[in-house]
Amino acid sequence: MLLYERLAGSLRGQIARGALRAGERLPSIRQLALGHGLSAATAVQACLQLEREGLVVARPRSGYYVRAAVPPPPAAKPPRRRVPGAVNNPALQEVLDMLARSDVLPLHSATPSPALLPQAALTAALSRSLRHHPAAVLDYAPPQGLPALRRQIARRYAQLGAAVSPDEIVITAGAMEGISLALRTLAEPGDVVLVETPTYHGILQAVAALRLKVLEVPNLPGQGIDVARLDQLLQQNRVRAAVLVPNFNNPLGSVTGDAAKQALLASCARHGTVVIEDDVYGDLAWSGERPSPLRRWDTRGNLISCGSFSKSLSPGLRLGWIAAGAWTDALVRAKYFSTVGAASLPQLAMAEYLQKHDLERHLRRLRRALADNAQRLHEAISRHWPAGTRASEPRGGLSLWLQLPEGGDGQMLFEAALEQGIGTSPGVLFSSRGDYGDCLRLSCGMPWDARLEQALKKLGQLAARQLA
Amino acid sequence: MLLYERLAGSLRGQIARGALRAGERLPSIRQLALGHGLSAATAVQACLQLEREGLVVARPRSGYYVRAAVPPPPAAKPPRRRVPGAVNNPALQEVLDMLARSDVLPLHSATPSPALLPQAALTAALSRSLRHHPAAVLDYAPPQGLPALRRQIARRYAQLGAAVSPDEIVITAGAMEGISLALRTLAEPGDVVLVETPTYHGILQAVAALRLKVLEVPNLPGQGIDVARLDQLLQQNRVRAAVLVPNFNNPLGSVTGDAAKQALLASCARHGTVVIEDDVYGDLAWSGERPSPLRRWDTRGNLISCGSFSKSLSPGLRLGWIAAGAWTDALVRAKYFSTVGAASLPQLAMAEYLQKHDLERHLRRLRRALADNAQRLHEAISRHWPAGTRASEPRGGLSLWLQLPEGGDGQMLFEAALEQGIGTSPGVLFSSRGDYGDCLRLSCGMPWDARLEQALKKLGQLAARQLA
Repeated sequence: MLLYERLAGSLRGQIARGALRAGERLPSIRQLALGHGLSAATAVQACLQLEREGLVVARPRSGYYVRAAVPPPPAAKPPRRRVPGAVNNPALQEVLDMLARSDVLPLHSATPSPALLPQAALTAALSRSLRHHPAAVLDYAPPQGLPALRRQIARRYAQLGAAVSPDEIVITAGAMEGISLALRTLAEPGDVVLVETPTYHGILQAVAALRLKVLEVPNLPGQGIDVARLDQLLQQNRVRAAVLVPNFNNPLGSVTGDAAKQALLASCARHGTVVIEDDVYGDLAWSGERPSPLRRWDTRGNLISCGSFSKSLSPGLRLGWIAAGAWTDALVRAKYFSTVGAASLPQLAMAEYLQKHDLERHLRRLRRALADNAQRLHEAISRHWPAGTRASEPRGGLSLWLQLPEGGDGQMLFEAALEQGIGTSPGVLFSSRGDYGDCLRLSCGMPWDARLEQALKKLGQLAARQLA
Repeated sequence: MLLYERLAGSLRGQIARGALRAGERLPSIRQLALGHGLSAATAVQACLQLEREGLVVARPRSGYYVRAAVPPPPAAKPPRRRVPGAVNNPALQEVLDMLARSDVLPLHSATPSPALLPQAALTAALSRSLRHHPAAVLDYAPPQGLPALRRQIARRYAQLGAAVSPDEIVITAGAMEGISLALRTLAEPGDVVLVETPTYHGILQAVAALRLKVLEVPNLPGQGIDVARLDQLLQQNRVRAAVLVPNFNNPLGSVTGDAAKQALLASCARHGTVVIEDDVYGDLAWSGERPSPLRRWDTRGNLISCGSFSKSLSPGLRLGWIAAGAWTDALVRAKYFSTVGAASLPQLAMAEYLQKHDLERHLRRLRRALADNAQRLHEAISRHWPAGTRASEPRGGLSLWLQLPEGGDGQMLFEAALEQGIGTSPGVLFSSRGDYGDCLRLSCGMPWDARLEQALKKLGQLAARQLA
């Protein structure tokens, strides 16, 4: 047996016996080497071996940690228990009220903390735009958006293998406006729209506000959109549009594979259903392997793609876009007669930022931070929450999706947490039919700290109290 | 006869004979005094006399000018000829395309030129907000809007005699979003909504996009909303909401008097019709006598008031508001699920600007400039356009409304002007039923210059060619 294998075996034993517990830090390389009379290189080799085995995780500039026994993913089938669904749920108003409170720990918010954003570069770009274009800042931008920004977005699509012209980009106030405008443009009241289940409650709200009917296709943990079921639903129903989040679906974090993406585009085209793609999380693949947007596989022009800078660069600048294809004129019109256009200054600054800075470099840092945050959340949940709690294992995005053990109630936990100043998103909001009453969504957009550790502990206690 | 009367009489004669023509500058006070062997004070007195008679107008730092024989206002009754109305008119797409072109003289745009805005103060406020709150700039603002800005807006209402709480203010991307959200919140598809005729085409578009039915109540030149007719229409129809522009209606520029305002509120309350007030031009009373918002007279809570900073401070920052009363929660929700919230930086900066600067002082300067621009437009029209052209005589706002003589076609003139690089708004867009085919709206938001003079001359020639 090699020396490093002997050390690895010793550590493996300590982990198995519980002498080193989930989330605990291994002794430093220096300590391991000194303690076992080995070279530092050998100690490193031992740790790398344990990392390959999935027993420990490395954290930059911190060391190796015992990996938590990751909770199993939530069940694919929604539970049978039903409560009032997303649209008329009173929790919705509480969620909105919460967004205005600075005294609530924002574990509800699927956005990156400002600490993870390229603050200096973005504020410098804002400041320069202000100095160089004061008149343009105060005047309207064109309703479709600034050409310079639209060119940058088209360039980004080209990097992802999708041919998008700047002429079909419409700048919006985030992807939410894109989805809302697309629905308003495509669908008449009473039309049927397909969404995933679970899916972001904002999509359900936008659909309900337009008096559209909802059909739900399952999004399966670890697999993504159930394309066979989608095809069946489209065969049985006349569906005007499908609003889909194929990359790191919110809240599950699942990715729909490339073959499934092509199949779903084909199915929708066959049945005359226009696809509205929401790809706001695609850039946040923690491994760095960005899943492709649907747009890459679109050969039929049957697709409206919505994107946003809110999840990767800044929620507060309120900038997103639509790659609108044949619907460009109609969408510019819809945009003009609801919000006229996006503010000029953020557009000027974002165009400059994208031109002058290496977006990929920022994304690499952000992805690492999010992966680390998620890992800490997983550990805290396995340490502090009731046994039987299940958690999604996404490989990207900004959320974890939790399912409480039998008898747990996500909405009651949400209420109890809010009283303690902790924000969460109750699962019931992510279904139009009141499914996911035992689920909860947590953000992994905040860097880990003692306050978060405390909050996760408190949440675990509150959850345990429900089951007692 | 006093000396000054003799001089006044001489000048009067020159004007009557055409020796001094409309729009021409009178000799300077110094020249008049020297030329007639009089004191400067006497020359001033003569000019003041002519000004009182309405024969000349004073322009600050420039002198006295012969007043144009102002064209009579457009006829109250819409012409009988009908063409496709606002919503499906192909001119609409051309108007939108025009907004993206920097090579078109923006006489179509009812916004103040950046030259008339407090550029230094606003950019300084933006720059300071950026320096002092970089994290807040990048992060979401609350969906309802920043409390500091909402307080400033409530304070402004208080100055206008209206009691509005900051808690019922919802920040929007301009008044257009306010109106669109209010309609979405109040009305179901198929509901009937009352609007003025003529009215801003954006209102007609927003109503049509929501599949609402339109009923039109006349807005009369010089009088405003025909309240008797409004009451009749509400009696005969079940009307869900009325979108009204009582102050400096766009495009006519008329003001509905305070008594009529109270009567229309009472009538709407009696018939269960919610009033949506669009008061974006109220601050632009050229005389400085700001007409009161409807909100001042509201005693029944039957009103949603929309306002904006786009017409007085900056269109490009995209900030407006709703004083939403009982509909506050519903409107915050509608806002959140369409655009989430307004961008943070413009809100921070606008709140600071309003706190630190004297808005009234800026408004005084802006109003004078607009009044002057309108006067120049009037003069140019009476000098260069075909006899029989009629023009509105607003006392505030940002537009003139023109009616061509018998045989004139506003839409053809719009097309011909666009080919010459001159933007105008064809009258037909301001009616849902295709009225006002012989009308045109021009902006008075641009400071007068040689290019404008040339454009007005060219427009006059194009109009004359139609009649030949």
